[in-house]
Amino acid sequence: MREWKTFSPADIPCLRVLGRTTDVRSPLTLFWTASGIELNVKASELRVLIEADYGNFEPWLDILIDGARTQRLMLQKGKQEICVFRMMDPSVTRHVLILRDTPAMPKDDQTLLQIHGISTDGSFEELPSRDMKIEFIGDSITSGEGGCGAVGEMTWNSGCFDCVDNYTFMTARELNAEYHVLSQSGYGIFCDWRGWTGGAMPLYYTQVCGLAHGSRNEALGAGTDWDFSAWQPDVILVNLGTNDDGSFTFAGQWINGNEFLDPMRLNPDGTPNAEDLGHVEDAAVNFLKLLRAKNPEAQILWVYGMVGSRMMPTLVRAMERYLADSGDTRAELMPLADTLPGEFGSRQHPGYPAHAKTAAAIAERIRTLRLLNA
Amino acid sequence: MREWKTFSPADIPCLRVLGRTTDVRSPLTLFWTASGIELNVKASELRVLIEADYGNFEPWLDILIDGARTQRLMLQKGKQEICVFRMMDPSVTRHVLILRDTPAMPKDDQTLLQIHGISTDGSFEELPSRDMKIEFIGDSITSGEGGCGAVGEMTWNSGCFDCVDNYTFMTARELNAEYHVLSQSGYGIFCDWRGWTGGAMPLYYTQVCGLAHGSRNEALGAGTDWDFSAWQPDVILVNLGTNDDGSFTFAGQWINGNEFLDPMRLNPDGTPNAEDLGHVEDAAVNFLKLLRAKNPEAQILWVYGMVGSRMMPTLVRAMERYLADSGDTRAELMPLADTLPGEFGSRQHPGYPAHAKTAAAIAERIRTLRLLNA
Amino acid sequence: MREWKTFSPADIPCLRVLGRTTDVRSPLTLFWTASGIELNVKASELRVLIEADYGNFEPWLDILIDGARTQRLMLQKGKQEICVFRMMDPSVTRHVLILRDTPAMPKDDQTLLQIHGISTDGSFEELPSRDMKIEFIGDSITSGEGGCGAVGEMTWNSGCFDCVDNYTFMTARELNAEYHVLSQSGYGIFCDWRGWTGGAMPLYYTQVCGLAHGSRNEALGAGTDWDFSAWQPDVILVNLGTNDDGSFTFAGQWINGNEFLDPMRLNPDGTPNAEDLGHVEDAAVNFLKLLRAKNPEAQILWVYGMVGSRMMPTLVRAMERYLADSGDTRAELMPLADTLPGEFGSRQHPGYPAHAKTAAAIAERIRTLRLLNA
Amino acid sequence: MREWKTFSPADIPCLRVLGRTTDVRSPLTLFWTASGIELNVKASELRVLIEADYGNFEPWLDILIDGARTQRLMLQKGKQEICVFRMMDPSVTRHVLILRDTPAMPKDDQTLLQIHGISTDGSFEELPSRDMKIEFIGDSITSGEGGCGAVGEMTWNSGCFDCVDNYTFMTARELNAEYHVLSQSGYGIFCDWRGWTGGAMPLYYTQVCGLAHGSRNEALGAGTDWDFSAWQPDVILVNLGTNDDGSFTFAGQWINGNEFLDPMRLNPDGTPNAEDLGHVEDAAVNFLKLLRAKNPEAQILWVYGMVGSRMMPTLVRAMERYLADSGDTRAELMPLADTLPGEFGSRQHPGYPAHAKTAAAIAERIRTLRLLNA
Repeated sequence: MREWKTFSPADIPCLRVLGRTTDVRSPLTLFWTASGIELNVKASELRVLIEADYGNFEPWLDILIDGARTQRLMLQKGKQEICVFRMMDPSVTRHVLILRDTPAMPKDDQTLLQIHGISTDGSFEELPSRDMKIEFIGDSITSGEGGCGAVGEMTWNSGCFDCVDNYTFMTARELNAEYHVLSQSGYGIFCDWRGWTGGAMPLYYTQVCGLAHGSRNEALGAGTDWDFSAWQPDVILVNLGTNDDGSFTFAGQWINGNEFLDPMRLNPDGTPNAEDLGHVEDAAVNFLKLLRAKNPEAQILWVYGMVGSRMMPTLVRAMERYLADSGDTRAELMPLADTLPGEFGSRQHPGYPAHAKTAAAIAERIRTLRLLNA
Repeated sequence: MREWKTFSPADIPCLRVLGRTTDVRSPLTLFWTASGIELNVKASELRVLIEADYGNFEPWLDILIDGARTQRLMLQKGKQEICVFRMMDPSVTRHVLILRDTPAMPKDDQTLLQIHGISTDGSFEELPSRDMKIEFIGDSITSGEGGCGAVGEMTWNSGCFDCVDNYTFMTARELNAEYHVLSQSGYGIFCDWRGWTGGAMPLYYTQVCGLAHGSRNEALGAGTDWDFSAWQPDVILVNLGTNDDGSFTFAGQWINGNEFLDPMRLNPDGTPNAEDLGHVEDAAVNFLKLLRAKNPEAQILWVYGMVGSRMMPTLVRAMERYLADSGDTRAELMPLADTLPGEFGSRQHPGYPAHAKTAAAIAERIRTLRLLNA
Repeated sequence: MREWKTFSPADIPCLRVLGRTTDVRSPLTLFWTASGIELNVKASELRVLIEADYGNFEPWLDILIDGARTQRLMLQKGKQEICVFRMMDPSVTRHVLILRDTPAMPKDDQTLLQIHGISTDGSFEELPSRDMKIEFIGDSITSGEGGCGAVGEMTWNSGCFDCVDNYTFMTARELNAEYHVLSQSGYGIFCDWRGWTGGAMPLYYTQVCGLAHGSRNEALGAGTDWDFSAWQPDVILVNLGTNDDGSFTFAGQWINGNEFLDPMRLNPDGTPNAEDLGHVEDAAVNFLKLLRAKNPEAQILWVYGMVGSRMMPTLVRAMERYLADSGDTRAELMPLADTLPGEFGSRQHPGYPAHAKTAAAIAERIRTLRLLNA
Repeated sequence: MREWKTFSPADIPCLRVLGRTTDVRSPLTLFWTASGIELNVKASELRVLIEADYGNFEPWLDILIDGARTQRLMLQKGKQEICVFRMMDPSVTRHVLILRDTPAMPKDDQTLLQIHGISTDGSFEELPSRDMKIEFIGDSITSGEGGCGAVGEMTWNSGCFDCVDNYTFMTARELNAEYHVLSQSGYGIFCDWRGWTGGAMPLYYTQVCGLAHGSRNEALGAGTDWDFSAWQPDVILVNLGTNDDGSFTFAGQWINGNEFLDPMRLNPDGTPNAEDLGHVEDAAVNFLKLLRAKNPEAQILWVYGMVGSRMMPTLVRAMERYLADSGDTRAELMPLADTLPGEFGSRQHPGYPAHAKTAAAIAERIRTLRLLNA
């Protein structure tokens, strides 16, 4: 009879935490989508004790064994033990990946997913380091919105996301990379899809998870400064601009609390107003400066174009200004192929084929850049 | 505020039960893989109250909404409420499919999966009938063994199956068919992969689920006669022969309880012994007679070849004998393409690409046969 | 220095003549599309002396070496020597295929393509026999109309055909079959696309090439009876019905010489007239009887559907009548997948992708039938 | 009756000459592979009067109408009239492309392909300019060696090339580019595949076609200086390095005329000798300088990797040195995917699938670079 033991995440030396979080490991809080843990284990059975909570938007969980997703499930409120695998040949070492498959949910102060313990009858084995580190920064596309659900489904809820059938996961797998994802549906460079300037990803870049609100998230450290020295990416991939584009065609003035927002304006001929485009351009330049300030050695790759390309000239100007001003030689813009008919998932967002082709293109470019910069 | 109600499966008129089971609906017992329920619902939330039990081999559950799999999960022992969806736009009618994704498990007397209730804040809508009915009869291939898990994984447990990324599901989807699956890993026409003649699918064809053992399964009616009049398939698809083939190369004599089995013999030149092949041929002829006796109008399609084709001459002879003896004009044999390198899943079994190409070939043939017989 | 020699086709024992022609080999006349010669040769250089003529529609030639097309060219009038290959390593045996890639052209009495001689510095090697023989009978689709030229090109001339990127060639290659093609653009089972009953392929089935007209073709034996004993196909594949369908929608009454034709009639609701459909059905039944009379052992496979399927019910009735009347068990109808957008070639005819998928489906079915009938 | 007229290439204003040649148009000499003419014509028939000659390696010709290759043929010695098309609907304007599909053949002083005249019954129409100009510089890969012939064929002769099923053609088509190809089998940056330093493409870059030898080629102007002002490419694509790599493993000392060559050396551990690699690196740097000197505005894209990647570190160093020395910001290195099993053509060279994937990658990169530099 094999011995059954339970471990805190803090007590497993070869466990790797994925995604930005605080130093606390007991329990370990998972704020962002695609955050979680990975470990190598030699056992017949493995269980994970998690705790979940939510107001409206429940967290979902993915379990992958040796790279194959075996379970994907909606979590209930409270503590619950999930069986990762059982009745397995215990003489084989398997790689286990457990991921939060739900974004940070700024609209739900109750959102919570924590790992309290890992139980097994086996042993944890060494976990080799990956070949590189990538930080992805994006919006709904990067969150995998539309990755789950039927093509015609239009409801926005926790179930419409997928962080595995997702270009972030696929790119990292292709490059054997450890990665973080910072992404939020609707958010942009300068403003969100309705023109709200609070919905700009750069505002939250220096915090652990500044998007997560409410007293519990605050107490858990979501708003504290992220320690950039602890995890320096080799590549920063920014995929923003699609919601800034959308803000120009948002119909009607939007009220944030008691405030009326200044909408992004269209010219009479239907093109975006130049002054408002300037705001986006400035925000992009400033974000590039911030990224470089915090990550002196990283290759910066700004990608854009999976859902329309109207912001491309603005991004070209921003990148040119940034490169000229800074003298930086390790930042560039990369256009992505548009999502074509047949490549969509639910919610009129990029589906599996669109994510797959995007991942292939990005992985090829990163491989090239690393070769040239080697 | 929408009203929350709970229904027994017996009380939902437009609920369709999938798979062979008894008349009892409260609770509804799911014996076979790919058995379950389907319904159309207009609601913001839907939950299903299930009960599961097992000795060694836990049951797994699939949830599909409008044809897209959203959850796949390992079940725990006891009663548990699974949330099928929540926070959905309630003005839209969605198709919900809830499936047992685990075979009947003859080795586990405790195997149990029951549906006690469905809870929702919405309404059940009419469920149109499908274009045809198909009955699939097979072994591990038809059970989807190898459909889940990494390609190198060799452990046999409940988690290695998949009834959705499976040629049965894909064929039925392509043809808009309602279908039943009767399948068991290791079983054959005349004997199982070790030569045990108790592991022959024809032995169990006339019962609800004669493979499921133990007093509880007995009490639930697994061993009772199946009422063929209640569900007459338009097409019977038999995919058997692979384990009869395997029995000729099973190494060592196998003991069933206290019995030594007569092994299937190989000739000195390594080819199967003709007398033993004759047993397989006879069993196939007899099974064809049984199928026709119980299903006077069905098109019978015997497919074979996804994992080797050594039994093909035996099946050809069996089909010729049956056709000649019976005068039947609605039964035929169809060779399937072998599973090629790159098309395998776990446990060296056909993976997704193999199931997809098989489904395409079978669906095309069924469409042709129905056209010709129209 | 290697010796250069010229041979008449009559003097090369291991040369295989492809396609229906007369016994004359010196010169050898190629009447039908896909007719030609094949041989194995070990040489550094090979030339073929051909003679071509035409009124309006010049013949084209394909040269394939070891299965790869190396040349495709329009022929000029008169005798001309075509270099098949030169400067080749002479120690290797290569398979050479030289094909007329132009139909029999009933509208051009001057059409002529003959092979007078083969010159080489090497030797002719043994040519193994193929695994089976197939006879294809069809219309423009089988002639490969649309296989050459840009997708938008609508001109009908000799250059719009392709007999290599063609389902006949691809099916035969897949099955290692020797094959004959009898096909004519516009022709049908009962009548041509304008309703002319002279444009019915069955009328010409018993002659060498009854479609080829004019005194020279007559002198060359085009109209003589074909000797069925000399070349019995294992499989007869009929792909007819598309032009009979078209005849119902041919606009305007057509005059053949001085005759007004009886058009095929549409009902007021736009469906084909039942009496006229009956003519097509009768013609199909009679053609099946003729095929069987001339080919007692062949498997007959009637395929249909690459460009619309309106004649399918008529063909189903015809096949049922034929099977019931004759007791034949080796004839069947096989629906083909329609040509989809993106699969078209020039002249709104099936292009390469359509031919490829058709060949795959037909080859699979022939393989099955041969297995079952083995 | 339409009027039949013959024109010299010099007399057709809207004819575009493709590939480097001299100013002489009557006749027009085609030195390089993929050189030829393109024109738009509205006619029922078009013929081209060409003249060909050779010692050992005959030239081949491709004819494309509206982008579809209709003929590919081996040419005979002497003047000959080739029919490009006939019996066409003369009311439609068609694009005609006539290409030499044979490299410059430095080993055959007699190589000759000239266009003397174009005859037609129709009219030449305006030919719009392309979106960009590309100059490709390469070796056998860029010449399309292996693009024609069966996969197992190993003979090197004129028939083994293909300039249409070729990444150069496909890239240009994708980008609507006019292009020149300068390429020679076996040649490299510093030396050819046997270490001969005369086989270096940079030596011939400033001449019309310095590779073509013999008194006739000399008289035709092959060795005269190319007028770079007449045709400035937007993109220069260099695909060299594969034969420099090969030179390190060339077995045995090679004699060029009476000279013994200094071989490229391998270290005892089988890696290339650093000093010899330095020669390749220097040659690459110098070639980049030459390209920039002659083409001040062009984007330079050096691609490498279709058949092995051993020279990549050398090329990386060369590009870095060049960029640092020159301050150039419009030159970069791009790794190409290796040719995988199943993607080869004849002569163990990249086949159609390899060329297609290469073209897609290059076209995407050029599109990106043009966007960023716009």
